[in-house]
Amino acid sequence: MLHHVDGERLWARLMAMARIGPVAGDGNCRLTLSDEDEAGRALLASWCTARGFALRRDAIGNLFFRREGRDPAAPPVLVGSHLDTQPTGGRFDGILGVLAGLEVLETLCDLGLETERPLDLCVWTNEEGSRFQPAMMGSGVACGILPFEQALAACDADGVRVADELSRHGYDTEPVPDIGPADCYIELHIEQGPILEASGKTIGVVTGGQGIRWYEIALTGEETHAGPVPMRLRKDPVPVLARLIDLVQEIGNRDPEARCTIGTVRALPGSINVVPGRVEMTVDLRHPDEAELNVMHDALIQGCGALAKRFPDIALEVAPRWHSPVVRFDATLAGQVKSCCERLGLATRDMVSGAGHDAFHLARRVPTVMIFVPCRDGISHNPREYASPEDATAGADVLLAMVLERAGACG
Amino acid sequence: MLHHVDGERLWARLMAMARIGPVAGDGNCRLTLSDEDEAGRALLASWCTARGFALRRDAIGNLFFRREGRDPAAPPVLVGSHLDTQPTGGRFDGILGVLAGLEVLETLCDLGLETERPLDLCVWTNEEGSRFQPAMMGSGVACGILPFEQALAACDADGVRVADELSRHGYDTEPVPDIGPADCYIELHIEQGPILEASGKTIGVVTGGQGIRWYEIALTGEETHAGPVPMRLRKDPVPVLARLIDLVQEIGNRDPEARCTIGTVRALPGSINVVPGRVEMTVDLRHPDEAELNVMHDALIQGCGALAKRFPDIALEVAPRWHSPVVRFDATLAGQVKSCCERLGLATRDMVSGAGHDAFHLARRVPTVMIFVPCRDGISHNPREYASPEDATAGADVLLAMVLERAGACG
Repeated sequence: MLHHVDGERLWARLMAMARIGPVAGDGNCRLTLSDEDEAGRALLASWCTARGFALRRDAIGNLFFRREGRDPAAPPVLVGSHLDTQPTGGRFDGILGVLAGLEVLETLCDLGLETERPLDLCVWTNEEGSRFQPAMMGSGVACGILPFEQALAACDADGVRVADELSRHGYDTEPVPDIGPADCYIELHIEQGPILEASGKTIGVVTGGQGIRWYEIALTGEETHAGPVPMRLRKDPVPVLARLIDLVQEIGNRDPEARCTIGTVRALPGSINVVPGRVEMTVDLRHPDEAELNVMHDALIQGCGALAKRFPDIALEVAPRWHSPVVRFDATLAGQVKSCCERLGLATRDMVSGAGHDAFHLARRVPTVMIFVPCRDGISHNPREYASPEDATAGADVLLAMVLERAGACG
Repeated sequence: MLHHVDGERLWARLMAMARIGPVAGDGNCRLTLSDEDEAGRALLASWCTARGFALRRDAIGNLFFRREGRDPAAPPVLVGSHLDTQPTGGRFDGILGVLAGLEVLETLCDLGLETERPLDLCVWTNEEGSRFQPAMMGSGVACGILPFEQALAACDADGVRVADELSRHGYDTEPVPDIGPADCYIELHIEQGPILEASGKTIGVVTGGQGIRWYEIALTGEETHAGPVPMRLRKDPVPVLARLIDLVQEIGNRDPEARCTIGTVRALPGSINVVPGRVEMTVDLRHPDEAELNVMHDALIQGCGALAKRFPDIALEVAPRWHSPVVRFDATLAGQVKSCCERLGLATRDMVSGAGHDAFHLARRVPTVMIFVPCRDGISHNPREYASPEDATAGADVLLAMVLERAGACG
């Protein structure tokens, strides 16, 4: 039998949450562990406790709202996402996954449906990583991937520690974070890219996450006056920058699944009439296949080596800074998402997530899958971020169907 | 008859001046109209007044120390330069021209030599343009090229106006700046480039200054997440930056006299995992021939137009920001510098100044020439800036010979 969530209630709650920490142009600013972040969590808690969902917290500030199952000892089905936002973030990134989870729990109550397994609605602390690094902090600690002490010591730009803010909000007396046993984790999220919209599909069945490699590259030449020094006597790193840009574009364009980005570039000292002595840049390589990502890595390192030989006057340093391996979600769960969508009459396509998500950490501990819905023009981390009420509802319907599938509807 | 300056006295004064506003690595910081700049000027004034050279000031802070001539009504011979420095400047840029001028005046006193014309040692306010823009401010106002009101209204990064600082130091009650009639202006300066050193010559006879054109270029695409958006759906301005760098290098490399510099580049918003929405850069084009500079200008504008057509997804704006035409110094004066060097046994070469100097403004009002001496490794605007005592002395000897040539030795 097909069940549906209350799309209007879901939308009203999305809009109510968006009134906390508003920024110009329909955006939100609820930075991790700020007063606004806490206010958003308090609003969610007020809705949850009104329906009798008990709250458990942990010492990194993760929240778990439980709808009890017929077998309270059975490993629960976890749903959720995050409520924190970028400084000029949108109303859906993370929030949809949390509020759709609440909507699923409430719909089950409205329908009088019990489940065999308990259901936990999870709210992870600091997914965005804007105020405190690294991102995906709460899920990382709770999954035993990020050391708790490292998370506690992280400081924001004003020198405030995560530990200070946790203590200010009273989380410090809670138990040490650990997700414990669970049946599975299911996270609904906006795509944050243009693919679903372009392909006319409503649901992205996310089979995994791209592997990511980050690099810092520096080109050092010699700073000189733009007037007196002839071109042939200069050690100008800027022409070599052009060759590096071409190299990175080549690596990105030989395979439609590859992503190559030069996100930062700057010439130093940065004066109109000074030949720069140094150029600094970053490179972000991504691929859904780890072997291919390694091929891209090798192409970058070898390409930099060739450029260093070709331009002996310019010192070229390339420093790998981070490697997040390819993530594979649970194939059984992905198959179940597809079946649910079929029953609901929703068009799907398989996808690989380009952005990082808490689900990446969960996948290392429990069977995990993500469900994407389209976002307009692929725009995210931006006040213009938008998912339609129809798509948000469709995503929540799929989440409801998955919860019933996994948690065991008892009638 | 050949006369020589006192090279040891000149060097001692250079080193004494360098003790005011010292920075690490033998450098100096005497920003325009700062307390340090004023202290440097006071030290000079103490030396000048000790020898009886009368001081005249003007309302933009220019200083003129006079050694009277036999005919006080005759248009004077002007020598000089500036005492202000870059934030991490050297000990010679500007300072050599001022202290060599003092050395020439003192040597004439020591030798008991009178001149027909009066001699004015000029110290121009704000040649560097680091704290207040534009550069070459005092000479520009005194030559009627830069509007006085514009100079007074210029603000530093803290919002302090030139007018405020002039008033603080008591210049505001002085006469409106105007150089008045003069026989000629002769400025000794370090080359700030590597050409003299590389060619083994001691004196550069500067026949003029390069024309300069400045541009701001902006490439606007669309900011997106580095993960979810495929390469072919991006509007990434960075690949177009590579084509622009190549274009500017081409323009610079087709003629050995041309200079092309991309001094500033930055990608915005500047985050490792965000495809930049915008790239901003500046271009500095220079050439000693105005017609060739115009050819370079046309090549840049047309090249940008071609790139705009080739990359329709990226908005390319190119905005010309400044044009300083080619400067030609006085040919008679240049010939006299060469004759003086010949008599002194100093090897010369003709040069065109790549850097801007107060002499560029003076050249529009009175016959003007510059004399260059080598600076080590061509390094300037840097604490490592260095001219040897021998070269500094040689330059001052030439200045002395020129002053005697133009002012008419009487005794």
